[in-house]
Amino acid sequence: MVPTPNPERRNERSRRATLAATIELIAARGYGKVTIEAIATQAGASKQTIYRWWPSKAALALEAINDYIGEAIDFPDTGDITTDLTTQISEVTDLLTGPIGTVFRGVIADAQSDPSVGAALRETIIEPRTRLCEARLAAAVAAGQLRADVPTRVMVEMLYSVVYYRLLFGTDELDPRKTPAFLEYVFTGLRPLPPRAEP
Amino acid sequence: MVPTPNPERRNERSRRATLAATIELIAARGYGKVTIEAIATQAGASKQTIYRWWPSKAALALEAINDYIGEAIDFPDTGDITTDLTTQISEVTDLLTGPIGTVFRGVIADAQSDPSVGAALRETIIEPRTRLCEARLAAAVAAGQLRADVPTRVMVEMLYSVVYYRLLFGTDELDPRKTPAFLEYVFTGLRPLPPRAEP
Repeated sequence: MVPTPNPERRNERSRRATLAATIELIAARGYGKVTIEAIATQAGASKQTIYRWWPSKAALALEAINDYIGEAIDFPDTGDITTDLTTQISEVTDLLTGPIGTVFRGVIADAQSDPSVGAALRETIIEPRTRLCEARLAAAVAAGQLRADVPTRVMVEMLYSVVYYRLLFGTDELDPRKTPAFLEYVFTGLRPLPPRAEP
Repeated sequence: MVPTPNPERRNERSRRATLAATIELIAARGYGKVTIEAIATQAGASKQTIYRWWPSKAALALEAINDYIGEAIDFPDTGDITTDLTTQISEVTDLLTGPIGTVFRGVIADAQSDPSVGAALRETIIEPRTRLCEARLAAAVAAGQLRADVPTRVMVEMLYSVVYYRLLFGTDELDPRKTPAFLEYVFTGLRPLPPRAEP
């Protein structure tokens, strides 16, 4: 009888080494050229051990991204939505210009031909973070800082999709220093409309 | 001596058959699983003929997309920017929910690991269409319908990136019927600010 692996028994040091190897190798060689075998060698783990915990390269990449960005890009709440989202989106932008950006681009590419990767990407990264951002935006709506008639889910798209557009198309530089100006354009449309002057 | 192919001598019927086969096969099997050989067979052309005109599968896919969408998504100018962009973005959205969307997703995925595909994608599709859209937006700025202080290139990103976000992440349905509501949110921030009421 093969015992079911107990997630709590997974060795944390080995897990971290494996995820670090995943990021390092993908950043150096590109997602498509990295094999589970190469990750195992780099991490000093056996291929079987890796497959016991992660069913695929995409699963490794997604957990690596989540671990790496986990606490770095929480949604702050200082009471001012413009300040808070500027901080958060600048941090996301900064992360995406580094190794994590290369890993993320690889997973997104993989998701275009493999629906199970797309589902895992949504379930482990996109949707949980969308919900966190929506909660922060809902607090700003309640505080009268944002319009109540735009769904917070649409606000999330309006705020983040340009970041991914630049990441994936490479049209313009992803520069955290440009975040404040860009957000100002978006927020102008999302703030409660000022009362119109009488004609 | 091998004669240099003369682009004007390329047989138009064969060209169209090859591009149609490219779209059909990628839509049916997915970008990654289609070979130049399969496209040649489907188009009734020789592999050499195809390689003479297109250096890669990405080149075939890009020309197929450009041909297919060419005239369908011109930027109309009725004098009203909201109407015109609603028409245009609804048409783009509609196209991307069909076979062309699958081809486009494949090329975008390919571009994440192959910088030459990324460059070709920008040069043949993204940048020419961005320039056309910018020209239409500049006319609207001149007509006082849009703010003069937001770069038209940023407006293009704000208007189109959500379409690609949904196409690539699969978070929410790409539905042309939802274009008007979405554009209204974006345009609210891009219109000249109304004079504030005196306090």
